Amino acid sequence: MEKRVDLNCDLGESYGTFKVGRDSEIMPWITSCNIACGFHGGDPLTIRKTIDLALEHDVQIGAHPSYPDLAGFGRRVMEVAQDELDSLVKYQVSALKGMTEATGGRLRHVKPHGALYNVMSTNEEVARTIIRAVAAIDQSLYVVGPAGRPWKAIAEEEGILFAEEVFADRNYMDDLTLVPRTREDALIGDVHARLVHARMMVLDGCVRTVSGKEVLICGDTICIHGDHPLAPDTAKALSQGLAEENVLVTSFAGS
Amino acid sequence: MEKRVDLNCDLGESYGTFKVGRDSEIMPWITSCNIACGFHGGDPLTIRKTIDLALEHDVQIGAHPSYPDLAGFGRRVMEVAQDELDSLVKYQVSALKGMTEATGGRLRHVKPHGALYNVMSTNEEVARTIIRAVAAIDQSLYVVGPAGRPWKAIAEEEGILFAEEVFADRNYMDDLTLVPRTREDALIGDVHARLVHARMMVLDGCVRTVSGKEVLICGDTICIHGDHPLAPDTAKALSQGLAEENVLVTSFAGS
Amino acid sequence: MEKRVDLNCDLGESYGTFKVGRDSEIMPWITSCNIACGFHGGDPLTIRKTIDLALEHDVQIGAHPSYPDLAGFGRRVMEVAQDELDSLVKYQVSALKGMTEATGGRLRHVKPHGALYNVMSTNEEVARTIIRAVAAIDQSLYVVGPAGRPWKAIAEEEGILFAEEVFADRNYMDDLTLVPRTREDALIGDVHARLVHARMMVLDGCVRTVSGKEVLICGDTICIHGDHPLAPDTAKALSQGLAEENVLVTSFAGS
Amino acid sequence: MEKRVDLNCDLGESYGTFKVGRDSEIMPWITSCNIACGFHGGDPLTIRKTIDLALEHDVQIGAHPSYPDLAGFGRRVMEVAQDELDSLVKYQVSALKGMTEATGGRLRHVKPHGALYNVMSTNEEVARTIIRAVAAIDQSLYVVGPAGRPWKAIAEEEGILFAEEVFADRNYMDDLTLVPRTREDALIGDVHARLVHARMMVLDGCVRTVSGKEVLICGDTICIHGDHPLAPDTAKALSQGLAEENVLVTSFAGS
Repeated sequence: MEKRVDLNCDLGESYGTFKVGRDSEIMPWITSCNIACGFHGGDPLTIRKTIDLALEHDVQIGAHPSYPDLAGFGRRVMEVAQDELDSLVKYQVSALKGMTEATGGRLRHVKPHGALYNVMSTNEEVARTIIRAVAAIDQSLYVVGPAGRPWKAIAEEEGILFAEEVFADRNYMDDLTLVPRTREDALIGDVHARLVHARMMVLDGCVRTVSGKEVLICGDTICIHGDHPLAPDTAKALSQGLAEENVLVTSFAGS
Repeated sequence: MEKRVDLNCDLGESYGTFKVGRDSEIMPWITSCNIACGFHGGDPLTIRKTIDLALEHDVQIGAHPSYPDLAGFGRRVMEVAQDELDSLVKYQVSALKGMTEATGGRLRHVKPHGALYNVMSTNEEVARTIIRAVAAIDQSLYVVGPAGRPWKAIAEEEGILFAEEVFADRNYMDDLTLVPRTREDALIGDVHARLVHARMMVLDGCVRTVSGKEVLICGDTICIHGDHPLAPDTAKALSQGLAEENVLVTSFAGS
Repeated sequence: MEKRVDLNCDLGESYGTFKVGRDSEIMPWITSCNIACGFHGGDPLTIRKTIDLALEHDVQIGAHPSYPDLAGFGRRVMEVAQDELDSLVKYQVSALKGMTEATGGRLRHVKPHGALYNVMSTNEEVARTIIRAVAAIDQSLYVVGPAGRPWKAIAEEEGILFAEEVFADRNYMDDLTLVPRTREDALIGDVHARLVHARMMVLDGCVRTVSGKEVLICGDTICIHGDHPLAPDTAKALSQGLAEENVLVTSFAGS
Repeated sequence: MEKRVDLNCDLGESYGTFKVGRDSEIMPWITSCNIACGFHGGDPLTIRKTIDLALEHDVQIGAHPSYPDLAGFGRRVMEVAQDELDSLVKYQVSALKGMTEATGGRLRHVKPHGALYNVMSTNEEVARTIIRAVAAIDQSLYVVGPAGRPWKAIAEEEGILFAEEVFADRNYMDDLTLVPRTREDALIGDVHARLVHARMMVLDGCVRTVSGKEVLICGDTICIHGDHPLAPDTAKALSQGLAEENVLVTSFAGS
């Protein structure tokens, strides 16, 4: 069977005149994007322009909701009660969904941002709240979350699809958690090494962890961090390098 | 033919622990509500609770978008370019629409708030931008705006419905603009006088202006300002007093 | 020797048109106030008006800095690095200090707000960062913090004064932590019981905890929560009731 | 007599992880800086770091207050009442002053930002409110404003110093207003042309306007816009080029 994978990137994170990321250089090489919803970046006009850019390049559109923390770019854990978290997610996803549809597109997935993604990765209650909130907005949306966690089962219980995400630019521990950013070997800095890392995950279904072990991993989509200077080069290298291996690089939600 | 009119009120304007309005006392007496969208009031959890309250009382739900100005409660004119205004409206209306649908309800109308309503009242370009943005989100939505302005024609051009709004608690000039708040006779302070004022507009289709003239006016919906201490009493008096005159007090968008 | 105590209250927490608290009813009965600095409440104009009101009633002025969380009213713990916390405190205290001096007054103390107060109560690193930041702004300022914690020693190390605070409206555990708000006996609801509670702490230097024990406690200042409906009555009852016992009710920083 | 001039630049405009400007490349070449105060950019930690950088390069420190408009970077005119404007300025200047003093420095001037600067340039009431607010915080501060306007006289009335600012990178109309940004000849794009423009203003006390006339102008300080890609080169070229003409390039407030 043909191997296939999606390449995703977080985009639309500028806020007013504060510019973040090189969206227009990255968009041609990815197959899905996660658009900031205004809570860590992404004012309404930036959202609309990013939707336009995604449609122009036929890139699948997702919402990228966050804790409400512009000053911290959504990277700080906040004490948010479950009913408030439910509303925070619904509000942001709804805003993206309506704006995407107003431009003739369709919202296909939701990927939590920053600290919210991290909390979701380890906290089942938060994962369930997010999955339920997304399902309440649109049962046909995918939730994108970390590979190797049992959240896919929760999504199935809630009748919603779950796409597992792996990272081309991050090293893994043996238990498939990411090497903490405080360690020197957290990041894979070289574009070619990222391609080798990604290729192994896609073609062989396993990852070489920092201890040297090969551990099984299954990724529907590969994340490229858009705020890194090498992001456009990485996106291009992965898009071309995986295609050369006869991997179908395409959005996970299908057309 | 039976006379009919809608009673509307701006609700859900609290922000976090900052409480505004007596929503639960007003909701039983009105037929439509305009829910703040987070830009002048109304955090996501407040929005959800207000939607729940409206559904409980079978009150028609509308979005109440604003300039982004929490500190000024949306009452200050802001320099916003037309493409940004378009996105601001779409973002807020989408958020309300998605959250309403997630609760099993349906968003039926959009009424701009505060300074945005005032600018829309006198500026055709702004009125057109708002009307188009709403139509792009959902062609079946009503836009609510001031009675006696030519915006109904713009809405028809854009293929969207327009509900004309009159004010029970405000006096009118001969040209159907409101008496400025800086004048002593701007407000009608007494609940009974408000009922008399509203009854004349609904039953006779005209309003007695501050100069004493009777001028034709046509209102689909009567606004009650929710932040006034007499708001619950006014809502109740209008609801009951108009029903006694065999006016059908019901939402303008129908069931 | 004459017993003396200060009565303090958190004021100036309104934000724009969002009104909080009954400042003008409380101010006549207290001897020091903690003015919100704009991060959980308190826009610049509200700050100036609150300073004016304090000067009018000869009430000692303090700054009431918070985590930057308007939506959560500063009641949610935030992940803030120590160097950022240092700057957050300095910024807010500086704003209050300059505005107070511009009105002819003098800033005398700093009391952290909400979640920042709670974290400071249990976290020595945070307590030290706050104390140092305050000392860097003005060595003559007092820091106000919880009684029964060893922070007074830290303040002395940093060459700054520390005022210990007790609560008239809260019950204590045997270890002098407050009974958690989740428990039914967290609050002392009755004004007279609050006076009895405060009188014992001031006159006898001990508190009757929820277990019935009498535990030594030393309070330089008694806090009255300004957002409670009984706040003005409590302030008046404590001010008058303690004076009747020949306690000198006066600000802790002296004149 | 020796000619002297100050070179100023707006710095510290980053907000959290949103980075703006190349502060560390510009700081070595200027003699005064205007530091954002948190209302259009500049969170507290960024403020502290910018103060540190200025002290390291012995650059005079000023506050750069703005309308409260992060999304619009302070470039949009806002409807703000005079008493609120007074408080907005006092709050921001106080925050900068206290934080500068806590680091061992001294705040020497205040220059309004963006739309506030523009409104001040043409509106005497606003100019007076700003000047009075600054004087109330610290009578020894300079206000920096546009050259060729009669505000220097207002400052003298209020007993405060006024520094007149000219622009190295902007063309002038015959009446000494700036050529509007909507015109193609608004900006002087070339570094050498900027030096010629600045040199004429400093050495000859006049400016060649877009009509070709030479009009008298007097500048205490030359502004370099920090967000332009050529800002570091311009700062270096002016600093070196003016020194070669025996102009003393030094801060206007003296040491």
